[in-house]
Parts: sequence; structure tokens; C-alpha cells
Amino acid sequence: MANIKDVAKRAGVSVTTVSRVMNNRGYIGKETRKKVEDAMAEMNYFPNQIARALQKSQSYILGVIVPDSNHPFFSELIKYIEMYANEQNYKILICNSLDEPEKESHYISMLRENRVDGIIMCSHTLDIEEYKAVNFPIVTFDRIISERFPYVASDNYRGGEIATTHLIESGCKRLLHISGPLKLDLLANRRADAFKLTCMRHHIEHEIIEGSNDNLTFEYFSEFIENEISGSLSSFDGVFCSNDIVAYALYLHATERGIQVPEQLKIVGYDYHSFTRMLQTPRLTTIKQPVIRIGKVLSSTLINLIETDDEDTINNTIVDVSLVKGQTT
Amino acid sequence: MANIKDVAKRAGVSVTTVSRVMNNRGYIGKETRKKVEDAMAEMNYFPNQIARALQKSQSYILGVIVPDSNHPFFSELIKYIEMYANEQNYKILICNSLDEPEKESHYISMLRENRVDGIIMCSHTLDIEEYKAVNFPIVTFDRIISERFPYVASDNYRGGEIATTHLIESGCKRLLHISGPLKLDLLANRRADAFKLTCMRHHIEHEIIEGSNDNLTFEYFSEFIENEISGSLSSFDGVFCSNDIVAYALYLHATERGIQVPEQLKIVGYDYHSFTRMLQTPRLTTIKQPVIRIGKVLSSTLINLIETDDEDTINNTIVDVSLVKGQTT
Repeated sequence: MANIKDVAKRAGVSVTTVSRVMNNRGYIGKETRKKVEDAMAEMNYFPNQIARALQKSQSYILGVIVPDSNHPFFSELIKYIEMYANEQNYKILICNSLDEPEKESHYISMLRENRVDGIIMCSHTLDIEEYKAVNFPIVTFDRIISERFPYVASDNYRGGEIATTHLIESGCKRLLHISGPLKLDLLANRRADAFKLTCMRHHIEHEIIEGSNDNLTFEYFSEFIENEISGSLSSFDGVFCSNDIVAYALYLHATERGIQVPEQLKIVGYDYHSFTRMLQTPRLTTIKQPVIRIGKVLSSTLINLIETDDEDTINNTIVDVSLVKGQTT
Repeated sequence: MANIKDVAKRAGVSVTTVSRVMNNRGYIGKETRKKVEDAMAEMNYFPNQIARALQKSQSYILGVIVPDSNHPFFSELIKYIEMYANEQNYKILICNSLDEPEKESHYISMLRENRVDGIIMCSHTLDIEEYKAVNFPIVTFDRIISERFPYVASDNYRGGEIATTHLIESGCKRLLHISGPLKLDLLANRRADAFKLTCMRHHIEHEIIEGSNDNLTFEYFSEFIENEISGSLSSFDGVFCSNDIVAYALYLHATERGIQVPEQLKIVGYDYHSFTRMLQTPRLTTIKQPVIRIGKVLSSTLINLIETDDEDTINNTIVDVSLVKGQTT
């Protein structure tokens, strides 16, 4: 079987150059890369990354646990986590927890057994206690687990404040916020805190109705609105929704019942993911989470945590949000 | 360090039971599983799957190459590939080719170097020649590469036939089909073949305008319609679109120009993925690809190919499609 020296000889380059091409590290000209790759292909030489992983005790694989990889926010996030990880020569394993604590827990063990180098945790149903025994790199999205694990989040408080202020400045007098589940200490709950305080500051009547994250689908939210919101909807003239799918479901519910949006009811969503960007009937007013940046920072923070011993370089990151004005306000 | 016997002792079960829990094989009661998992956690015992993979020369990892994991069809497909693979104790690595041949080729080598057990190939920009040297398991979605690689596809021909017949039965006289790229021999092109033949059989005037798959985004298709379709749109009263995102972009383009849908122009899409199912303004008439089934069959075919030596059990699979009547016809 061919070895790295044979490949170097065939390609007419040094062993170091072959190694650089294989590891995707350092600058390699396009032609040189091609020569090496051709030589590898011709000689049927594929370095066994698993053997190398054992040697180095690094697999260059990151685990990513999400509630549902088909939800437009997470599918977009995964795309950018993968793109950035790939630039750094890491691959990603995807796991869907479907927001079931048992699955989440199973995936954490399973990923560890497979010696992933670290985990990006975007699904949050486990109590913080359950992370106490975890002794390998984890970065979380939108949740503080402990000082040992950096987190990345959008500025949820600011998002709630911008959304609420926009509704008040548009003339709303009685506001509703449909929140996510408040039982877990998620950073997303700061949207509800900001809603409450902004209303109080402006002496605006307000109410919060707690949604559930157990099921992020359109069907769930349509039913939720029918059962939990419909009865009291006429007492509000503005609603800040915790995500764009609820916002669209609410828009449909209201217009079907002859409530004119935005004249009688103003709606603001949260996310601005690919579904929202495609939706033109209507274009939703919403708070944009910069998902490309979140994906990139999640990857780079985790890779940093894996590759460096200097804890001082590991930071939590808050990314900015902004208002996207659509047709629902 | 604890070994499997210590864990079995602590949990009060046999070594075989511990092994079954670890490998997720055979029936294990919920309580027993918990006892074993607790014992593993307490003793900090994590079997090294990488070492085991080397021994068995199996990694239990499948590579999945898609054009864009954020496209609603592929994000849904990935979800069901992952769910089914997980039931069989396999994990999936996701790669986005962005429809660039260089990336596709790079990912195939990269996955091989990482000793994935096989690849599910949903991105198709490489010539068939380039697969000649490939000597490990690949299953394709919607493309025939060679007899060595099984494929899974929806019944594209039937889909094209149902869509076209539906437009004709709804009274259309001059039909347009916006196809995918016809240069590669993709099975999806049979939608265009069926469109053509069904129109000829019914003596219906028709035209095919070739779209591109290079970029599957809403923004791309909106621009494409503006540049390539807009000028001749008034000469058609029905359009069969090769996917739902084009169909929605076309609906928006037409209504913005005062063309009434479905009265003056009828539109049928293709896919019925999560975006389409959420979209209620309007509900699109479309051809449903059963994506859950496609994901499951892609996983099971590949796992079968990896685990069995009996080539006779490996089959190509065609899954049925159906018409979903919405508000655009």
C-alpha cells in the first residue's frame, strides 16, 4: 500500500506539502493542491483519519444537537455552523433531540462515546444539574449552563425592547406577548422581561401568554392560538410574538376572523429566518437574529475551546439584533 | 479505569445486557437501560467507539452531501435520514456542496478519509465518470450513476403527468413548464418529459424554459422569473413549476402585475416541503414528494448496502407522488 512518501514522490513535492494538503492547513497553491490530490487518487492513498484521530486523540468532528433540524431557524444555523467548521477542517454530526430530555441526554453520551471533540448545544430541556458531570467542551446557543461553558446568544433583551417600542410608537395601547416556555432559564426569556418593563415604562396595558417550545411546528402554533389566544385577542391591538412562525399563524388567524392587520392589530415576530425572508404575503415585521454570525461564532468558539488551553481567550458572545419593518405593523 | 464488567456488576445486570445498551441493539426495558446508563455515568465509563470502529473497520457514520442543508426540501430530508439512521445506531455527517463540483468532489474524498461507512448523495454536479474510481457504498437521491449504486427517487414521470393533466383538466390551453437544469441526466428531468408528452397527447400548445439548479434560493428564482419568464408570461394560462419556491415566486410576480391566479393563470408546483405546508397565502397546488419515506429509504438502503454482502437484496426504490390541490389552480 502506498504511503505518504510515495505520494510526495509521485506529486513531485515534499512530504510536508502532502501533509498540509491532507490537513488543509497553511497556504497551498491551487495547482500544487491538485497535483497532490491527483497523486493521492491515482495511488489510491487515503490517510486513515480514524487512526490519526486515535493517535492525536482528536476526531475533528463537532456534534450539533438541535431540537429540529427542519425548523427554518435551525436549518439555517446548521448550514453556517457547517460552512465555518469546514473552513477549519472540522465536520459536523447532526442530532435532533425533538425537545425530548431523554434524547438530549442520550445524544450527549452518544457523541462523547464517538469522541467528538466538542458539542454545540442548541436544544435545552435538561436541568443544569445534568451538565455537572460533563467534562468536555460544550458551547451553548441561548442558554447559560455554567461558567465552564461559553454561550452565544442574540441580544434577546434588546430584541424585546425594540419590538415593544416599535408597537408603542405605532400607536398600540394594549399589548400582548406570546412568549416561549418560561420554566427553563433560557436567554430568550429576556424578550419577555424587556416586553414587560418597556410596557410599564410607557404605562401600556399588557399581558404575557406563555407558549411552549415542546413543538415548534406551524400546526402546533395554529392550534395554540385557536385554544389559548383566540378568546382574548379582541382586547389587544398589538402582539409581540416570540418567533415568526407564531407571528404568521396569528396573522392568518386574525385575517380569517376579519381582524385587519395592521389597521386593527399589529404583529411583530422574531427570527427573520429563510421562511420569513421568502414570505411576501405578507412580509412580517420582525426582529432579525443574524444567523450567519451566530453560526460562525458558535463554530469558532467551540474550535477555540478545543484547540486552546488558555481559558482567558474563551468568551461568551452577544450578537446584535435589528428591526425589519414589514407589512404587519 | 472501569471496564464493562465493573459496569455490569454495579448495574446488577449481565455483561451482555450492558453491551446491548451500548450498541442499542435488541430489546432492553426502560428501567434496565436506565440502570445501565446510570452505572456508566457514575463510573465515568464511556466505551471508545473510535477504537471499536478501527477494530471492526466500521464507524457507524454516514455522510450526507446535499446542495444546501437550509433548503426546505433538504432540511426535511436530512431530518428523516437522521431519525432513521439513529434508530439503526448510525450517525450522520452533513456536507453542503452549494452545487459546486469542486466542493462535491472534496467532500467525497474527505468523507472517505474519515472512514464513513457510506454516503447518501443528494447533490449532483459531477460527471458520472468521476464516480468510476469510487469503491465504497453510495446511495443517490434522484440520479442514476451506475448499477453499482442504488438510487431512491420519487416517481418524477408520474408527477409531471399528474401536474400537466391537472392543468389541462382545469381548462388550460397554453402551458409552460419551468424545468430544472436539463444538462445533467437527473431523474427529475422526467418531469419535463412527462409534461411534453402529456401536452402532445392532448394537443396542447406548450413550451419548456430551463431553470438552473445552481442556486435554489427564492431570490434567484424571483430574478430568473423577472428576466426569463416575464416577457412571455401573458401567452400562457398554466405553468407547471419544477419546485414550490419557483411556484411561489411566480405567483408573486403574476399577482403584482395584476394577473389573477388562478382565474387567468394556473400554477402547479412540486415538493410540498415544510415551507409549502406552512404557506397559506396562498396554499399552492403542488405535487407531494413523500419526504419522510424518501429519507427512511435512503438510510435503510445505504445501511443495507453497508451491512450485507448479498447484492440481490439491494434495490432501487421509486416512491409514489400525489397531487395536493391548493388555491393556485
